[in-house]
Amino acid sequence: MFGPEISQLLQLLGKLPGVGPRSAKRMALHLLKKRQTLLPQLVTVLQEAQTKVKTCSFCHNLDSIDPCSICSDVKRDKTSLCLVEEVSDLWAMERTHNFRGVYHILGGVLSAIDGIGPEQLNITSLMGRVAREQFQEVILATSATVNGQTTAYYITELLEQYPIRVTRLAYGLPVGGSLDYLDETTISLALQARLPFKQTLP
Amino acid sequence: MFGPEISQLLQLLGKLPGVGPRSAKRMALHLLKKRQTLLPQLVTVLQEAQTKVKTCSFCHNLDSIDPCSICSDVKRDKTSLCLVEEVSDLWAMERTHNFRGVYHILGGVLSAIDGIGPEQLNITSLMGRVAREQFQEVILATSATVNGQTTAYYITELLEQYPIRVTRLAYGLPVGGSLDYLDETTISLALQARLPFKQTLP
Repeated sequence: MFGPEISQLLQLLGKLPGVGPRSAKRMALHLLKKRQTLLPQLVTVLQEAQTKVKTCSFCHNLDSIDPCSICSDVKRDKTSLCLVEEVSDLWAMERTHNFRGVYHILGGVLSAIDGIGPEQLNITSLMGRVAREQFQEVILATSATVNGQTTAYYITELLEQYPIRVTRLAYGLPVGGSLDYLDETTISLALQARLPFKQTLP
Repeated sequence: MFGPEISQLLQLLGKLPGVGPRSAKRMALHLLKKRQTLLPQLVTVLQEAQTKVKTCSFCHNLDSIDPCSICSDVKRDKTSLCLVEEVSDLWAMERTHNFRGVYHILGGVLSAIDGIGPEQLNITSLMGRVAREQFQEVILATSATVNGQTTAYYITELLEQYPIRVTRLAYGLPVGGSLDYLDETTISLALQARLPFKQTLP
């Protein structure tokens, strides 16, 4: 019903995360409909990304420059390091506009079941930076999952030999969240970490 | 936080149907992670699609050859024409493996609200084929929406001057569908079109 070009396109688009056979079809037909406009633009942009984007040799962020725009920004506070799992987590932190330090991307979390040990993560480069640079605080911003917390615990142990303050993000109610829809553990932790009401006002 | 290459990639991926900013981010990071494998493969496949895929000058299907593989297949019944809205509808029909005729793709439906009249659809080429080729039956497989049925009605009128049997797909219960979840109109139509039970057994 169609040639090899279309079936290869469907197959490759289906390999993208969150794209099933149905979405791959919709995307392919959309691209083929716009094969004089959107399709060549996408090709150019993908080629640019392939040749220009590199991994930062300090923090493992993805950017057009190495060191990345965060590591090379003189206005960032080089004494505060935020440890995240993935580039998407760095993007999420940056969206808050509330962190002015630098990052280190682990590239995942420790996971016995997936065979991911410390050597699979960017921990050697982290310890190198900790030994070389002058961090006063390391903020563990791994996710609030068992693996995320195991990883945070493992790194805390490694950092104990240095005079560095090691913190983690607070647990609690997400803003806009209703108690009724929250799990018991989150509510318990939010209760334990309760603060005087007036202290939390801006 | 990242260079122009990544932001352009996010922007273009976000233009694909069903891809919001969040999925665009996931897709971009996945492609950048695999920028030595999946990304160049996708570029090649997109370029192949751009240069090789064409619109069939008979039925407006998308394929690597023109006439498309269906129009040029000598085993297809050239007396039976199925009229569909889009290429995706042709693919859906072909998945049934139950139609052995040929197709004509309208490229949409009549829609006063969107300013789509007969001249915006592939109706001139349809009438040309009807006059030239030897169709005995035209199956109207437009969707069961108001616009789809208006379009089917409009085409039925145009075809009346020819000794051609004009049919449409049956309405009724979708297989696996429960009455409780079906609208009244579908149930009413299925009731009107009821068949002797034994006649429907294979």
